[in-house]
Amino acid sequence: MRGLHLHDGVLSFRTDLPRPEAQPGWSRIRVTRAGVCATDLALCRGYMGFEGTPGHEFVGVALDGPHRGRRVVGEINAACGRCASCAAGLDRHCPHRSVLGILGHGGAFAEEVSLPDRNLLVVPDAISDDAATFAEPLAAALQIGEQVQLGSRRRAVVAGDGRLGLLCAHALHHAGCAVTVAGRHPERARCLPDAVVHRTGLLEADGTDPTPQFDLAVEATGRGATLGRLLPWMEPRATIVLKTTTEAPLTVDLSLAVINELSIVGSRCGRFGPALDLLATGRVPVERWVEARYPLDAAAQALTRAAQPGTLKVLVDVS
Amino acid sequence: MRGLHLHDGVLSFRTDLPRPEAQPGWSRIRVTRAGVCATDLALCRGYMGFEGTPGHEFVGVALDGPHRGRRVVGEINAACGRCASCAAGLDRHCPHRSVLGILGHGGAFAEEVSLPDRNLLVVPDAISDDAATFAEPLAAALQIGEQVQLGSRRRAVVAGDGRLGLLCAHALHHAGCAVTVAGRHPERARCLPDAVVHRTGLLEADGTDPTPQFDLAVEATGRGATLGRLLPWMEPRATIVLKTTTEAPLTVDLSLAVINELSIVGSRCGRFGPALDLLATGRVPVERWVEARYPLDAAAQALTRAAQPGTLKVLVDVS
Repeated sequence: MRGLHLHDGVLSFRTDLPRPEAQPGWSRIRVTRAGVCATDLALCRGYMGFEGTPGHEFVGVALDGPHRGRRVVGEINAACGRCASCAAGLDRHCPHRSVLGILGHGGAFAEEVSLPDRNLLVVPDAISDDAATFAEPLAAALQIGEQVQLGSRRRAVVAGDGRLGLLCAHALHHAGCAVTVAGRHPERARCLPDAVVHRTGLLEADGTDPTPQFDLAVEATGRGATLGRLLPWMEPRATIVLKTTTEAPLTVDLSLAVINELSIVGSRCGRFGPALDLLATGRVPVERWVEARYPLDAAAQALTRAAQPGTLKVLVDVS
Repeated sequence: MRGLHLHDGVLSFRTDLPRPEAQPGWSRIRVTRAGVCATDLALCRGYMGFEGTPGHEFVGVALDGPHRGRRVVGEINAACGRCASCAAGLDRHCPHRSVLGILGHGGAFAEEVSLPDRNLLVVPDAISDDAATFAEPLAAALQIGEQVQLGSRRRAVVAGDGRLGLLCAHALHHAGCAVTVAGRHPERARCLPDAVVHRTGLLEADGTDPTPQFDLAVEATGRGATLGRLLPWMEPRATIVLKTTTEAPLTVDLSLAVINELSIVGSRCGRFGPALDLLATGRVPVERWVEARYPLDAAAQALTRAAQPGTLKVLVDVS
C-alpha cells in the first residue's frame, strides 16, 4: 500500500508498504484523514528510535470488525489485555503495548492501519472528518482532568498556544477553570473562548515574570525547558502538568519545586469518548485551525510544513 | 553573643553578634545543641543568598514566653499569621515568612535564637538532647506522608543513605511501606530496620538499572540529578518525592515522566509533633548516627567535617 516511511531519520513516500494483516480481535481501518502532531516531528529527530510509518491522529472507515463500514477513530495504545497493568485498568500503560505510529506499530500516514476492536469509537455525524482528527490530541488535553482535580477555583496557566496548548486551554475552560494562555502568537486569541485570557511575552526570559498567581500550569509548548519559566509563577502546593514529550533533556533548577512543594505531573494520552462528546458540541473550533492539507504522496511535505514555527495544524488527506 | 556568621560565602566565629530582641508573641531560646544539615552546606555555597548565622536543627531551653525554663525544639518557618496562606493553614508557605538560619532569620549556631511561641514544642523527657536535634529533619521526612498516600501497598525506594535518606526510610517503614534504600555506604544497613532492604550500586550509572518496580521514590541524595536515575525505575503513575534543595540546576530528560504519567512532588518541612512522637518511641536510633561533635567556637569545623563524603551526622555543642 501507499504510505510514509521513516528510516534512519529520513522520511520517504513508498508504494510497497505491506497492508496490516487481519488478526482476531483487531480491525483494519482505511484511513481518510490524518493530522500531524509535534510528536511526529520529534520521531523524525530520533525520539523513541521509531522506524516505520508515523501518524497517530486519524479518522477512517473500518474495513472489518464490529464497526465495519462505519467512520471511526481509534485510541492509539494497543495493550496486551492480559498483564497486571491491563487488569488494573491502566491499559494505556501496558508494558507490552504498541502505540500507533509511535512504538512498534505502523501509523496513519498510510492507506490502512489496524487497531484492537476495543480501541475504536464510532464518530458521531456531527463531527467532520477534519474535526475527528483532533480526537486524539483533545483526549490528551482532557486527560489533565483525569489526573488533577479541576474546577472553578483553579487559576490555571497554559504555556503554549500551539495545537496542544489551545486544546488544553479549551479543556481547562470546559472544566470551569479560570484560564490564562501564555503564548507567542497574538492572533491565537481568536482560537480561544472569550473568557480565556491570552498573553504574549510571558514566556520570554526578559524579566516580566508574573508574581506567583497560578495554582495549575500546563506545559504544552513542545519545549520542556519551559518548565523552568513556570516554576516562579506557581503558588505553594500548586501543580504543573507536563504535556511535552521530546527527545531533548532539559536543564532546570527544581529548588522552587521543593521549597514550594509543587507537584509536577506527567500527562499523556486520554480517553476518546469525552473528546468526541466535546467535539460534537462544536465548542472547540478545531476546523478553523487547519492551515494546510497535503495528499498522502506529499505527506513528508506536510511534516515539513508543520515544523515551520507558527503553524497551527496540518492535515494529510489519505483517501 | 557568640556564634557563627556567614558572609560572602565565608564562615567566621564571632563574639559580637547581637542577641535576639524580645518581641511580643515570640520566645527567646538558649541553644543547647544544634545539628549540621546539608542545607547549611548549600547555604555556604550560595544557596538562598543567605547572610548571617546558619543552623536550623536545634534543641534549647526557653528563656521567656509560655515555655520558659523548659526544653524545646522549634519549627523553623516563622509565618506572619495574617496572610491568605496562613489563613489556609499553609503557614510553612507564608510568603512573608522568615526561616530560621535559612531566610532572613539568625540561626542556631549561636547562643540564642528566637521563634514565635506557637512554633515551639516541649521535648518529652524520653528524648535526649542529641536525638531532639533530629526533630526537624525527621519532621521533613514524615512530611512525605502528608503529601503522598502511603501504606502497605507501596513499594518504595529511597535514593540516598545519608542523614535525610535514612530518616525518610524510617518514616516510610513506619507508615507501612516496603522500603528499599539505594545507597552508597554498605555499613548504613545497620542504621535501618531489618525489614528495609539496603542496596549499593544502584545509583551508579553502570547499566545495573532495576526494571520498573517501585511506585514511590524519594530523592534524598543531595544531588538533584539523581532524579534522572530514578525515572526508569518507576512504574506508570508512580510518585517521586524530591527532598533535595540545592543551588545547582540539574539536567534531566523528563520524557519518561510524561510517558509513564509520573508525579514529581517537592517536599520540604513538616510538623514537629509527629516527629517527637516517633523519636520518643526510640525506634529511630538517631543517637548512634552522631559521628562528631564540636564546641560552638569550632562550629565552622563542624560544617567542614559534615561536608566530608560519608559523614552521617555532626553536632555542635552550644552550651
